[in-house]
Amino acid sequence: MMKKKKVNAAILIIGNEILSGRTQDKNIAFLSNWLNLNCGITVLEVRIIPDVEKTIVENIRTLSKKFNYVFTTGGIGPTHDDITAKSISKAFNVKYEFHNEAFRILEKYYGKKKFNDGRKKMAKMPRGAKLIYNPSSAAPGFIIKNVLSLPGVPSILNSMIENSKRYLKKGSKTYSKTLNLYTVESSISAELENIQKKYKKFVDIGSYPFFRLGKIGVSIVFRSSIITLINKAQKDLKDYTKKRKIKVFNLPN
Amino acid sequence: MMKKKKVNAAILIIGNEILSGRTQDKNIAFLSNWLNLNCGITVLEVRIIPDVEKTIVENIRTLSKKFNYVFTTGGIGPTHDDITAKSISKAFNVKYEFHNEAFRILEKYYGKKKFNDGRKKMAKMPRGAKLIYNPSSAAPGFIIKNVLSLPGVPSILNSMIENSKRYLKKGSKTYSKTLNLYTVESSISAELENIQKKYKKFVDIGSYPFFRLGKIGVSIVFRSSIITLINKAQKDLKDYTKKRKIKVFNLPN
Repeated sequence: MMKKKKVNAAILIIGNEILSGRTQDKNIAFLSNWLNLNCGITVLEVRIIPDVEKTIVENIRTLSKKFNYVFTTGGIGPTHDDITAKSISKAFNVKYEFHNEAFRILEKYYGKKKFNDGRKKMAKMPRGAKLIYNPSSAAPGFIIKNVLSLPGVPSILNSMIENSKRYLKKGSKTYSKTLNLYTVESSISAELENIQKKYKKFVDIGSYPFFRLGKIGVSIVFRSSIITLINKAQKDLKDYTKKRKIKVFNLPN
Repeated sequence: MMKKKKVNAAILIIGNEILSGRTQDKNIAFLSNWLNLNCGITVLEVRIIPDVEKTIVENIRTLSKKFNYVFTTGGIGPTHDDITAKSISKAFNVKYEFHNEAFRILEKYYGKKKFNDGRKKMAKMPRGAKLIYNPSSAAPGFIIKNVLSLPGVPSILNSMIENSKRYLKKGSKTYSKTLNLYTVESSISAELENIQKKYKKFVDIGSYPFFRLGKIGVSIVFRSSIITLINKAQKDLKDYTKKRKIKVFNLPN
């Protein structure tokens, strides 16, 4: 069996509404989970930036060089603050122009009479862009080079994401398992460090305290592209908790 | 009256659990709102990065140069994956060492007998750091230069944020008002653009479609540090909606 390569991505959230705290982002967790589960793509960085052309251009240039893919969300609607497509054109020094197929899709959807300038704007894209079809509200997203542009409204983004799959090369999926313990972090920190050292770069072990239903606990998350190693590392910790009489329990992940 | 200056900040979320989509972030919206309302500080960029020393060091260096303040969340607990304080020390080329007061606070909180190595680790900070006290679980955050380090657990972060206020210079608050319309974006996009042009850089107008309770609508958000300008811009749009018989309605913001 050929070992699959690691494929990574960054997410660039474009929008003052998220940055100002007015709107709680929902796209990061969805995209990150979806990319890992469906394509074996690991999100390694997220940035949230305002609707400012210069800032978008700089970030597209930086992130598209640094990661295999960049997913943008937001700023592809019909209003003046929707400047993502124009800014990406600028970042790649290509023309910002009507995409013929996008124009036809939108004209058909709205009807010739109601296809006003705002709606026409949604057919403008960087030259050379390919469409990511939108089954819920017609206006397509697009991909140019390694940058994929999706809308900011979570329900629409979710309905479109499947249509981006054809453009993505697949990598090795990261598996994860969680062990929940009725204890505090500092009672297991020394042993956790030993286990982390044993599995080095092959298993990533995270420790996350929580307070739920009046109980204090720690979730220990094991992540790796090799599931047998996760099981081994998890067993090491289970053995330790038995010795120390730390209670393990199950919670919805 | 002296005009207050603009003060800005970046938020750096450190943690694989947010990046992987396992945990939904709650700190961004809270911090951004709190900073604006209480200190007149505008968050201009957010980054979410993994628990990797090199990545943390690079981001601290870049962001601390670019913004007035950088708020980090996460990675200051007792386990092996808590490397924020060490990484910030490296970023600023200062020693990573025990902070005397933090050591005493933690020793008192846990008692000498239970003050193990994991817990002692939470007293290690960049040399020269000042403490941000923690009323809920003792382990303090810290500030060094313009970087403030806070924990990742939202309830603890929320309880500490007030104690960071003394270190922050105040700027001009950004006010915001929202007008909710029963319409689609593309029916108002041309007029919105006119209004945006009229108020130029002084009012930032954002347009956000939503689907709620089976209704399609658009929230138009006006943001500015000058509230009279927000009211004027909002009135311009209200006049237009009257002419066009677009229904305005109130929603919780």
